Amino acid sequence: MPAKAVILSIGDEILYGQTLDTNSHWISGELDSLGIRVVRKLTIGDTREDILKSLLEAEELADIILITGGLGPTNDDLTKPCLVEYFNTELARNEEVLAHIQNLFDKRGREISEVNKQQADLPANCEAVPNPMGTAPGMLFQKNGKVIVSMPGVPYEMKNMMEETILPRLKKQFVKDGIFHRIIRTIGVPESVLAETIKDWEDSLPDYIKLAYLPTMGSVKLRLTTDNDSESRRAEVQNLIDQVLPSIEKHVFGFDNEEIEEAIGRMLKEKNLTLSVVESCTGGYLSHRITSVPGSSQWFSGGFVPYSNAVKNEQLKVPSEILKEHGAVSEPVVLSLAENVRKELNTDVGVSVSGIAGPGGGSEEKPVGTVWIGYSDRNKTVAKKFQFIRNREINIKFSAIAALNMIRINLDKE
Amino acid sequence: MPAKAVILSIGDEILYGQTLDTNSHWISGELDSLGIRVVRKLTIGDTREDILKSLLEAEELADIILITGGLGPTNDDLTKPCLVEYFNTELARNEEVLAHIQNLFDKRGREISEVNKQQADLPANCEAVPNPMGTAPGMLFQKNGKVIVSMPGVPYEMKNMMEETILPRLKKQFVKDGIFHRIIRTIGVPESVLAETIKDWEDSLPDYIKLAYLPTMGSVKLRLTTDNDSESRRAEVQNLIDQVLPSIEKHVFGFDNEEIEEAIGRMLKEKNLTLSVVESCTGGYLSHRITSVPGSSQWFSGGFVPYSNAVKNEQLKVPSEILKEHGAVSEPVVLSLAENVRKELNTDVGVSVSGIAGPGGGSEEKPVGTVWIGYSDRNKTVAKKFQFIRNREINIKFSAIAALNMIRINLDKE
Repeated sequence: MPAKAVILSIGDEILYGQTLDTNSHWISGELDSLGIRVVRKLTIGDTREDILKSLLEAEELADIILITGGLGPTNDDLTKPCLVEYFNTELARNEEVLAHIQNLFDKRGREISEVNKQQADLPANCEAVPNPMGTAPGMLFQKNGKVIVSMPGVPYEMKNMMEETILPRLKKQFVKDGIFHRIIRTIGVPESVLAETIKDWEDSLPDYIKLAYLPTMGSVKLRLTTDNDSESRRAEVQNLIDQVLPSIEKHVFGFDNEEIEEAIGRMLKEKNLTLSVVESCTGGYLSHRITSVPGSSQWFSGGFVPYSNAVKNEQLKVPSEILKEHGAVSEPVVLSLAENVRKELNTDVGVSVSGIAGPGGGSEEKPVGTVWIGYSDRNKTVAKKFQFIRNREINIKFSAIAALNMIRINLDKE
Repeated sequence: MPAKAVILSIGDEILYGQTLDTNSHWISGELDSLGIRVVRKLTIGDTREDILKSLLEAEELADIILITGGLGPTNDDLTKPCLVEYFNTELARNEEVLAHIQNLFDKRGREISEVNKQQADLPANCEAVPNPMGTAPGMLFQKNGKVIVSMPGVPYEMKNMMEETILPRLKKQFVKDGIFHRIIRTIGVPESVLAETIKDWEDSLPDYIKLAYLPTMGSVKLRLTTDNDSESRRAEVQNLIDQVLPSIEKHVFGFDNEEIEEAIGRMLKEKNLTLSVVESCTGGYLSHRITSVPGSSQWFSGGFVPYSNAVKNEQLKVPSEILKEHGAVSEPVVLSLAENVRKELNTDVGVSVSGIAGPGGGSEEKPVGTVWIGYSDRNKTVAKKFQFIRNREINIKFSAIAALNMIRINLDKE
């Protein structure tokens, strides 16, 4: 039986829809990848009654309770007094934590106040969890083999604590034989097609190796998990991946945590190639995805967002006859754009996107969601049409993912 | 006392961190703007025990229970059988819903299966909530003055049901005298400074008009709410806004639901001006924000993402001496870029961004987070330096918001 966890988020700003709770989402994914089962997520307001009641409920359900929020320096934040009451203990000043807070204030050249010093007062029975990113320490409690941890709600503070201290502790205490994952990252193929393709292989998996399909926008992760992190199990997982890869290879862009924009960066770097893009309907989003990867200036030279036809014509030398005859959303235009951006910016690869994101601009012949993508390198210039649906935001995102995938496919053939 | 609500999300994919729960966030905001108080948000797995237990708990806490998820056509989805059991009723086929499902299948040219027909079988005591976007209807139950609604987890299906049917019903039943909001949208000013500036005005507000500070990245919404949607109250709210506006006007970009990129589009359209941008460290994200507004091709001509110095030099005619002497992240470079992009793309306004997003590329003199933004129109070319911190993603977003705000401020002066 896997260990069970409850995630408790404290804060009116989440209840009232002001803050999207990305903390509990991130924690869920991290616990899942340790093989710990999240049985409940709970968001409550910052009131004594709610906090105490939820702690009791959570303790009944789970071995692990992870609490975020309600730990600021002001009196509105009730988590700490509630934990003192819940564990029937008292506050004691932690000198190590105080030194850390003092140090942070010194660095910022600010005077430490009594309120800030009180952040070093912790329930006597807890272990302080270091918070290198901020002043409020985490608090870790052990009770009858259960672990209860309280963390600040600031995402980067919480994540740092989880990664540095809490996840390793939980792994040691609750994941007896360790856990081992390998993730195959696929793109541009529906989950159902993937499942049909690998059905026989999936049926042949031993019962101690689990397969999960994790779909996200335009891509599906195939995750193999074994609950015993031994050399032999690792080898067995790798063997199984080697078996299945040939049948799905054309959809696979990478492994484990690599995103498609990182995979493209890696491929370009390996092949010593540079990339430029020209994007109309995606309006900068494709360049944004490419440049969200640290170090992307090594392989990405730049991009254009030619939103008006005049700019397509003047800056990128698309002949105005072609624009007039076929319209901006057409095969000849994206072919011309991809080739011209490659030459204009003097890169090895050029990519173009032109489409109708919506809500306006559609026609019988070219409805909203019609998108042409072009790709050009030294050996060829090609284009492909896509038909997406729904709304502007989704069309922009799917178009960028399709363009990233088109780069991958063509780089693979290089 | 405002009515109380519990939001119940059903689905393993949320518990295991595969799907970010944006549904409950959106619902929270909608209920909040009706003056209904969300007291708890709960995410549970798709098990009979969890569903029944949570319904009981929620009924104790709230007048309204909104449930999403667990309503698909497969047998994994347990919400409907659990509702039958909870309300001690039985399933009955709803002919109107069946006709709707049949119609959807006819349109798609697909054969309806028995499993799909069963989606029209609903608990006998519920009212079907139409789902124009999909096959699974919503179910609305009345019990001792409380309302329990079950909806599908697909976001656009859920939102459509909420907007068309459920929110108007809740408003009628629980918001006796109606509710009226006006939101003042500010940008580029910290919440604490805003609060200090309007303190006297805030203290003078009558107790039937509430003020809320709703901060998001780089901007703060000031929301005035009155729980009586009468002509006289509306006039009073407007009066109060007119009183406070002069003291904060320079931070205000719009009202109610208008986003900063929409406000800029509106301003450019009103003044009949066009815009172009050149963005380095934001890597396309600024253009993406501008073009996320439908119809933005009316005022946005295009943009460049000159990621390499060669491109800055060749495409945008920044003299290489300037680049060499001052570096790409400098005042002379953004001044030159803003002016050149305006001239090159023949627009009225040109904007430039150049900075060090991180994690690499920082120095003693120009640490990670150093960002220069330039603005150029027919009358002037100006630049401003910003110092952000933290990580790449946050620096990119804050830089884009700062650039949007710089456009607003300078357009205001036009």
